Amino acid sequence: MKTEEVTPIKIEKTTSSRIGQVDFDKLVFGSVFTDHMFVCDYVDGRWETPQIIPYQPLTLDPSARVFHYAQAVFEGMKAYRDDNDGIWLFRPDENFKRINRSSERMAMPVFPEEYFFEGVKTLLKLDEEWIRKGEGNSLYIRPFVIATEPSVMASPSNQYKFVIICSPAQSYYGGEVRVKIADHYSRAASGGIGYAKAAANYGAQFYPTSLAQKEGYQQVIWTDANTHEYLEEAGTMNVFFRIGDTLLTAPTNDRILDGVTRKSVIAIAEANGIKVEVRPVKVSEIIAAAKDGSLKEIFGSGTAAVINPVAGFGYGDEKFELPKMDKPYASMIKKLIVDIQYNKAEDPYGWRYKVE
Amino acid sequence: MKTEEVTPIKIEKTTSSRIGQVDFDKLVFGSVFTDHMFVCDYVDGRWETPQIIPYQPLTLDPSARVFHYAQAVFEGMKAYRDDNDGIWLFRPDENFKRINRSSERMAMPVFPEEYFFEGVKTLLKLDEEWIRKGEGNSLYIRPFVIATEPSVMASPSNQYKFVIICSPAQSYYGGEVRVKIADHYSRAASGGIGYAKAAANYGAQFYPTSLAQKEGYQQVIWTDANTHEYLEEAGTMNVFFRIGDTLLTAPTNDRILDGVTRKSVIAIAEANGIKVEVRPVKVSEIIAAAKDGSLKEIFGSGTAAVINPVAGFGYGDEKFELPKMDKPYASMIKKLIVDIQYNKAEDPYGWRYKVE
Repeated sequence: MKTEEVTPIKIEKTTSSRIGQVDFDKLVFGSVFTDHMFVCDYVDGRWETPQIIPYQPLTLDPSARVFHYAQAVFEGMKAYRDDNDGIWLFRPDENFKRINRSSERMAMPVFPEEYFFEGVKTLLKLDEEWIRKGEGNSLYIRPFVIATEPSVMASPSNQYKFVIICSPAQSYYGGEVRVKIADHYSRAASGGIGYAKAAANYGAQFYPTSLAQKEGYQQVIWTDANTHEYLEEAGTMNVFFRIGDTLLTAPTNDRILDGVTRKSVIAIAEANGIKVEVRPVKVSEIIAAAKDGSLKEIFGSGTAAVINPVAGFGYGDEKFELPKMDKPYASMIKKLIVDIQYNKAEDPYGWRYKVE
Repeated sequence: MKTEEVTPIKIEKTTSSRIGQVDFDKLVFGSVFTDHMFVCDYVDGRWETPQIIPYQPLTLDPSARVFHYAQAVFEGMKAYRDDNDGIWLFRPDENFKRINRSSERMAMPVFPEEYFFEGVKTLLKLDEEWIRKGEGNSLYIRPFVIATEPSVMASPSNQYKFVIICSPAQSYYGGEVRVKIADHYSRAASGGIGYAKAAANYGAQFYPTSLAQKEGYQQVIWTDANTHEYLEEAGTMNVFFRIGDTLLTAPTNDRILDGVTRKSVIAIAEANGIKVEVRPVKVSEIIAAAKDGSLKEIFGSGTAAVINPVAGFGYGDEKFELPKMDKPYASMIKKLIVDIQYNKAEDPYGWRYKVE
């Protein structure tokens, strides 16, 4: 492994790995990080030489704009180890394109493609031991960009930091999930930033979600801010509804994240003979389908869980339980995607990306 | 000055002031900071002992939630020095209440009132020399709160940092300001966080504003995200329209910031015999008034500029110039507010707050 020679990345290796202190059977999502991190600074109109350094705190002026104006975007990806110790990413080109779409919406500079891919690959090779074999094990990869210019002027920063940190993850099981359909709070405005993976979209959801949690739900299904008549996203995931044998999901627009897992679910479902309707989904039709028994499944899709089935939902004062299906689409589609991710199945789509 | 004895604040003074290096006649807004800062950490469900320390960088884990989920709020206040060297704040109780309203919406803990006031006062006394006499001179005070817990889990942080930094400011004059009325992009959703002084509301505006700037405008007047038929805010300020001799401004709601200067403008205007209508303001009525000559003034209100007159505006392909008024309300109201701020006039409202 001589990445120093093939990339422009400056590498400073850690002198002592922390991997021995980590219990890989008791990982809390996103709270343990690998030995190294990738950092690249944007100064004077250009990205400087990228660096990989030992995982360490960031030192920023208290006036750095990220603290005051949330000029910040991120991505979520995973690396998987197959049975032959091959390391794989899943559709990283989509994450790369999306972080730059997000940055553009937040008036931030785009990041060079070669820095992104060489950065991820070099970092993964250095911290390869942190990627464990076995179903559900993965390394969660968090690229993010923050505005660092030390000035509280309310205008785009002239300085940024692109960072990649990695966190080992186990199979995600959040327990039985019941969701509340939003009828007052909202996640995104038309003409806003909902489609971007901007930090600003996430913190804003915490309070309405905490209110739903007090009512016994785990997450909120967001509806359109204008009428609350259309279903848009579930928590921080895209959302699918199965009525009869048809899967429904909202089309992406400027309020809805163009999820990588979402588009993979649509492709896998269609390739396996499931009818998918990508169209606005009304709250009223889901309620009616729940009442007449034709609503079979609801699930969220996202990088962390791949697919997260919903056990029940609430709307206003009404509560609905979903039926227990023998062969739910959620499990079937999840297995098909996971098998591609772990190199256990053919990949006719070209989604797998080998780290080498 | 023995603040150590009357407050619970732990104080570490700087050993060498930077004030000698500052040219107070050439200040760029928000980019020079005083010798000290106020810091208070929230850990294990409580705010720890507040500290005042030399101005210095913040050191945060790269996984700190503020970077990823924009769990962050702030305030903007100013301190003024009168001709007898008295130091004054303007309605700081409003800023205190608002930062806690903002924090609540962002699922962050509220900050104790005594810590806030003692923190601001003690900091101002320590850095008193940075507050200069003379019209327009002030010290801009930036309290802010950021989520610091080192974990990228998308849920409210369990750790926070409350910080106050201060920046000397001169009279704000942004040149002739022309604004574009938003007809596609938007600032806030109903049911969203627009009313909060959340970091997330600001970065999201930068890109649409940069597009308007390419068309020759300086700022955007935000309209409602749903129909774009109603005028809501101008840039990062509240906005007033004078038609004939009446001032119009939108009522606050969950999309519009409850501006301290806004409510001061309304009170001052009414006390001086100006009719103020606080009601939804339609784009169409402003266009019609511009065309029939009854639109006399548009101005923004906010802490930085107090009042910022608008010279012209654009809507779609049409451009409008506002008339040059002999005695504009903007100047009259600004003088009345500024005279109260600098202790040059009576304060029947009890808005002035002495720092002592």
